[in-house]
Amino acid sequence: MTAIVEVLTQLLIIFVAAKLGGELFLRLRQPAVIGEILVGIVIGPFALGLIGLPGHELLALFHEDSDAAREGLTLALETVAELGVIVLLFFVGLETRLSDLLRVGLRSLLVAILGVVGPFVGGTLLMLALGYPSIESIFMGTVLVATSVGITARVLRDVGALDSREARIILGAAVFDDIIGLLVLTVVSGIAVSGELQLTRVLWISVLALGFTAVVGGLGAFAVRRLFPPLVERLQIEYAPLVVALALMLALASLAAAIGLAPIVGAFLAGMALAEVRDRYDLHEQALPLYTFLVPFFFVVTGARVDPQLFLRSETLWLALAVTAVAVLTKALGAALGTLGFPFRSMAIVGFGMVPRGEVGLIVASIGLSLGVVERPLFSVAVVMSMLTTLLTPPLLVWLLRPLVAARRAALASSVPVTRSEER
Amino acid sequence: MTAIVEVLTQLLIIFVAAKLGGELFLRLRQPAVIGEILVGIVIGPFALGLIGLPGHELLALFHEDSDAAREGLTLALETVAELGVIVLLFFVGLETRLSDLLRVGLRSLLVAILGVVGPFVGGTLLMLALGYPSIESIFMGTVLVATSVGITARVLRDVGALDSREARIILGAAVFDDIIGLLVLTVVSGIAVSGELQLTRVLWISVLALGFTAVVGGLGAFAVRRLFPPLVERLQIEYAPLVVALALMLALASLAAAIGLAPIVGAFLAGMALAEVRDRYDLHEQALPLYTFLVPFFFVVTGARVDPQLFLRSETLWLALAVTAVAVLTKALGAALGTLGFPFRSMAIVGFGMVPRGEVGLIVASIGLSLGVVERPLFSVAVVMSMLTTLLTPPLLVWLLRPLVAARRAALASSVPVTRSEER
Repeated sequence: MTAIVEVLTQLLIIFVAAKLGGELFLRLRQPAVIGEILVGIVIGPFALGLIGLPGHELLALFHEDSDAAREGLTLALETVAELGVIVLLFFVGLETRLSDLLRVGLRSLLVAILGVVGPFVGGTLLMLALGYPSIESIFMGTVLVATSVGITARVLRDVGALDSREARIILGAAVFDDIIGLLVLTVVSGIAVSGELQLTRVLWISVLALGFTAVVGGLGAFAVRRLFPPLVERLQIEYAPLVVALALMLALASLAAAIGLAPIVGAFLAGMALAEVRDRYDLHEQALPLYTFLVPFFFVVTGARVDPQLFLRSETLWLALAVTAVAVLTKALGAALGTLGFPFRSMAIVGFGMVPRGEVGLIVASIGLSLGVVERPLFSVAVVMSMLTTLLTPPLLVWLLRPLVAARRAALASSVPVTRSEER
Repeated sequence: MTAIVEVLTQLLIIFVAAKLGGELFLRLRQPAVIGEILVGIVIGPFALGLIGLPGHELLALFHEDSDAAREGLTLALETVAELGVIVLLFFVGLETRLSDLLRVGLRSLLVAILGVVGPFVGGTLLMLALGYPSIESIFMGTVLVATSVGITARVLRDVGALDSREARIILGAAVFDDIIGLLVLTVVSGIAVSGELQLTRVLWISVLALGFTAVVGGLGAFAVRRLFPPLVERLQIEYAPLVVALALMLALASLAAAIGLAPIVGAFLAGMALAEVRDRYDLHEQALPLYTFLVPFFFVVTGARVDPQLFLRSETLWLALAVTAVAVLTKALGAALGTLGFPFRSMAIVGFGMVPRGEVGLIVASIGLSLGVVERPLFSVAVVMSMLTTLLTPPLLVWLLRPLVAARRAALASSVPVTRSEER
């Protein structure tokens, strides 16, 4: 009972703080998400300490003073936060049709490939140049590979740019990026463990990851169009369309995670498949209350993981800053190169939109730690890199998106206003 | 990461199983909630083992083989389940106006008082008669006191009887019951610890609990009418009315819990206060997706806690059955007496509606265990009693409510059908 009461209080604090932070930043004409992340830093365990995440599974590897008794609390908060980012990407998926993504499909693939090659090569070369052994250097390159698209997706939605061409390229690229990142990790960790390329394992994971994405992404929309209406119309439970939609969201998120992909990739694909029947069943409107309630937990928890002291007391601060610089520049340049021929600003939006590493970098680094490939100081480097890429992106993106948003507002204002009832 | 993936998979299993169970029972013309509880027993750790709750904070006291590593997972699932029952009672509150409760207020108070006295006296006398020491006997009486209203509220909603006079008496009585239960627990555990009545402490808790309920229940509706519209209309965040409503729900649930009351009492009072502005801000419709997503977790987890083997292997099975019989009969008779003068069926509905003890009995018993007042075999008796009162009530209530539901359907059918658009 006491544990549940404690969790409840923490959820209250997080929710209220998130909304206050969001409100403040909206009044400063900034997207709410920046306020939510900053408020997370402020109330987090490394500043005011109003909420506790010291037992964080990954950070615990770094902060050895973690208290086992608090790990349950941590996992409980992380579960709600994870549901938040899953609902976020599900929601973003609902606003994205497969046809929109296919139109930019090759661009997305190019952005993903170049955005993976850049950081991988850049990170590895930097470490080699600094004299680290080759396997450790390659692993550090791997840590820099994968993008965590939650931050960017939220910024794009907050400023109302989710249906722009740039946003679609980023979303498509994030899916490819996650697949390629998984394959790179499989290859590198396989070599780290056995000293050779485990070809069967790599092939098997390629088949699984590509198969999952191709089948769900390609056939999902078709299957939903054919199967969803007869299914939900036969069910007697309340809100059957929403129920089936949420079940699909959880199922594809779990399946993606079981394969080794990010759960949010599955949630995004579920949303995209359901975009076909979205309007018919009001799914968008029904998902909004879940978005309103759950999404803020993800961003506050993301902020709460930032330990400002790490920047001061880290013995490896210069290395961390160098790695972060490589992580930002190689990803932004690589991804932007994939949109060569676009206006400069669009290239920059796509490039910097792919920069945040969020949890993904930490997860890869912790795998390296558990394999004995990455040493503890290098793990702290990965933590700093993850934090900085996550914190730097939102303000930069907002600044880059300003003209695009202004042009849309102007276009909206000049067109005849359409009221809700007329739409129907 | 792995822990989060595991939680995600469990949430998927629980959600899908809950909805399948609900669908099956709807087709059997039974309320969905019974299907959700039964499916919880089936997939729970004591049967198929598809989901794990062995580290349950309370049951862990009983099952000594609990695995500390799984306690995080347990707390994560319990957090989602707790959010579910909080949203349920918040929702029920939204459908209840203070004026409706005030009309039956004295009846509710009478039902609560007699429904507390009956089990307390009955439980104590039974134990004394069986030769248990007086302090242990009194504590067992205390275990039988408090009702857990979640089950009954859900059954009433499932059959569409939430706005009946019986439902309102039960809801009001549940609030009083929780306050009286807290006071009885404070008195008894105070005596158990210090050997004497800790009058200051009892008075202090009385003031807190009564003050909280009176202020929130009595002034909440007034405050919401005055403060809610200007506040939400000044906020710039998306869905401001829903955001403020959910913040109030979490705040009052946490506050109630901090005082020692059940979190759901706070959530219910929050919903009731917001009933005043419900229609103006579409709160009801916006809360429904949260209800659809979160509530099933509570009932599946409730079912998953039932260990059928306990009934077979318990050395104290006969004692457990005797205590359960006393728990059911004294509560039903006491509560029903409070509605003396009502039709017999209404008395029975109110009486049996107050029977489920759910978590509350377990919590009280675990306090007794930690104080050294209750021995481990008696704790297992409390577990069996909690399980049986929770499982028996839904089918019984459904059967009792059948004529009331049929009469309402007939009345609805004979009135001119009102379509949605005409309503507006």
